[in-house]
Amino acid sequence: MGSIGHVTPQQMHFSEPLPLKSGAVLAGYTLHYETYGTLNAERSNAVLVCHALNASHHVAGTYAEQARSEGWWDNLVGPGKPLDTDRFFVIGVNNLGSCFGSTGPMHVNPATGRVWGADFPVVTVEDWVDAQARLLDRLGITQLATVLGGSLGGMQALSWTLRHPQRVRHCVAVATAPNLSAQNIAFNEVARRAIVTDPDFHGGHFYAHGVVPKRGLRVARMIGHITYLSDDAMEQKFGRALRAAELAYSTQDIEFQIESYLRHQGDKFSEYFDANTYLLITRALDYFDPAAEHGSDLARAFAAARGCQFLLVSFSTDWRFSPERSREIVKALVDNRIDVSYAEIDAPHGHDAFLLDDARYHRVVRAYFERVAQGVKNGMKQGAHQETAAGARHV
Amino acid sequence: MGSIGHVTPQQMHFSEPLPLKSGAVLAGYTLHYETYGTLNAERSNAVLVCHALNASHHVAGTYAEQARSEGWWDNLVGPGKPLDTDRFFVIGVNNLGSCFGSTGPMHVNPATGRVWGADFPVVTVEDWVDAQARLLDRLGITQLATVLGGSLGGMQALSWTLRHPQRVRHCVAVATAPNLSAQNIAFNEVARRAIVTDPDFHGGHFYAHGVVPKRGLRVARMIGHITYLSDDAMEQKFGRALRAAELAYSTQDIEFQIESYLRHQGDKFSEYFDANTYLLITRALDYFDPAAEHGSDLARAFAAARGCQFLLVSFSTDWRFSPERSREIVKALVDNRIDVSYAEIDAPHGHDAFLLDDARYHRVVRAYFERVAQGVKNGMKQGAHQETAAGARHV
Repeated sequence: MGSIGHVTPQQMHFSEPLPLKSGAVLAGYTLHYETYGTLNAERSNAVLVCHALNASHHVAGTYAEQARSEGWWDNLVGPGKPLDTDRFFVIGVNNLGSCFGSTGPMHVNPATGRVWGADFPVVTVEDWVDAQARLLDRLGITQLATVLGGSLGGMQALSWTLRHPQRVRHCVAVATAPNLSAQNIAFNEVARRAIVTDPDFHGGHFYAHGVVPKRGLRVARMIGHITYLSDDAMEQKFGRALRAAELAYSTQDIEFQIESYLRHQGDKFSEYFDANTYLLITRALDYFDPAAEHGSDLARAFAAARGCQFLLVSFSTDWRFSPERSREIVKALVDNRIDVSYAEIDAPHGHDAFLLDDARYHRVVRAYFERVAQGVKNGMKQGAHQETAAGARHV
Repeated sequence: MGSIGHVTPQQMHFSEPLPLKSGAVLAGYTLHYETYGTLNAERSNAVLVCHALNASHHVAGTYAEQARSEGWWDNLVGPGKPLDTDRFFVIGVNNLGSCFGSTGPMHVNPATGRVWGADFPVVTVEDWVDAQARLLDRLGITQLATVLGGSLGGMQALSWTLRHPQRVRHCVAVATAPNLSAQNIAFNEVARRAIVTDPDFHGGHFYAHGVVPKRGLRVARMIGHITYLSDDAMEQKFGRALRAAELAYSTQDIEFQIESYLRHQGDKFSEYFDANTYLLITRALDYFDPAAEHGSDLARAFAAARGCQFLLVSFSTDWRFSPERSREIVKALVDNRIDVSYAEIDAPHGHDAFLLDDARYHRVVRAYFERVAQGVKNGMKQGAHQETAAGARHV
């Protein structure tokens, strides 16, 4: 297994308006993306990787002259890795509304000449998928060998099979859920309130004031971080370990290592993440609910995905998106007699496990991509051309 | 079962300095308390009720001419109720550092003539117990028939059996833990950061500025509230129910009922709770760890409690203080051949269950107090007089 080595981000501008689920329309936009490996002559070996909350198009490899710049899924994607870039052409794309390059709230709204800020339209998982589909059109990719994602990225992967089923042969959705629970929404809402009520937020137009609502971002990140780790993992890693030899008996100083860790995570995050992007992305999570348009019947929703094949992976200690939530998806697929593999990995790390280098997890993903590779040799599935025409309408 | 009816809070001033666990000394202080029922001639039917985070000495009954002023454990304490005030003399006492009457950060520090604010000394569970013991001395109560508490109140009840075992016949500790886990501390720390970084906090001396760090308090309460409810209870009560018929597609407006509920809880809390008290009480939770002085061996810690009898109660869906944590205490007691009853109640409500009117839970508590009442008839336990002398030293 080797490294991809240096990679270079690319960008593509789209001037055709993108209709959004909210009813708003984004007049034009730019997507930042990266690709690894080589698209084969049949254009049948493309894998799209969808990112989660604070990730980006930089999935794998490193940037030249930038230390510690490995992509967020570099342990999974590369030559000889479970998603093998010697065999697959892998695409990472940064979503609309992000703060990592693609058009988002930090950019100027051409209609007003002012930075979007809080006026950037609310984007959904479905909108992201539609924007990604246009990128594929431009890259000349009619059908994906696989769409892959974890957490919020898994929701996008699932959404691909519902909106563009003819363009997807396989869907790999890791540590994800068919929608957020009330508790999931609750955590998002507390994080949002922390940001929005920070006096430096200025109604989402803080850029003009030369400030950043760092206090809110810190608290939001700390809350998020607690939900990414399992109770046990936190206990193993930190327990009640103290920072100093003796207690200081202070309400504001750090006493416990876990406090130090969380504050550090919050501080780091507040230095690079955009507050409006945080609001947009947590809302995209809240809104995702493919069953809603089908009387809350997830099986009816997934009837659209017939013809796609699935791998679902969950982690035993993930209490953010628990195995039960993945099993709901599996059941909905089975109810439609859709081909689905499901792996419930006994891992101690909680939700974060999907980003970690767990041997059993990576074996499952590797084995699945072996199967996908066999399909690549045998050519595209039926019906792909019909969808090409539909997809082409977007261009 | 009847109601206690109108009750009247009382207060008692203590001018003898209270040495605190931190090494600081509180020169003098006042405790607010309430009593229900009648102390018998033998003074053997007293039950002390310890309160948790945002409760007070107002355990049961109502205040005259104040609507909806029932005490926080009114469903458990009263004539004919599980803790029967026809048989027991029940004492509720507000802890030091609180914002509900007893000496706390909102009061004036006599040494400086200024409001304590963030300079109020850090108080621990042990300090509270010692202050409560002095109140009992003044009330002429040598030995408690029972010390009772839930959550943080349960920690105080446990601490009583370790610091003053001769003064306790029975300990009833509900929904509690032998210490906080890393995850518990993490949630407390996020709440504290939300408060401390609110610009209206002014380093804890906001009173002088005529403001209150409401933004921080709101966020703190919202976080807390999520941990009080079970995932399932939240799902049953709110699920993904929307506030309006249609989505607004907004990052700041309320879309889901759970958001509305949480914001309401946060707003209410920020109107009446003191920010410095919140910091102090979450720290008291963090610090409680009776095993720490015994090489983390909880059984060794509870050797001190021999002679006391225990009822431990936990709730199946409590993920803040899970049944596993109560079982750790039960094991430590059993290892010391201490008489302990343990009930794990299958209840859907999460941590909040300890405050709710669950029939099985209340039957267990009622049955236990029947047994305590039998003991009251048979007189105090051995060794009580020896401790009287020790206790008397405090007066």
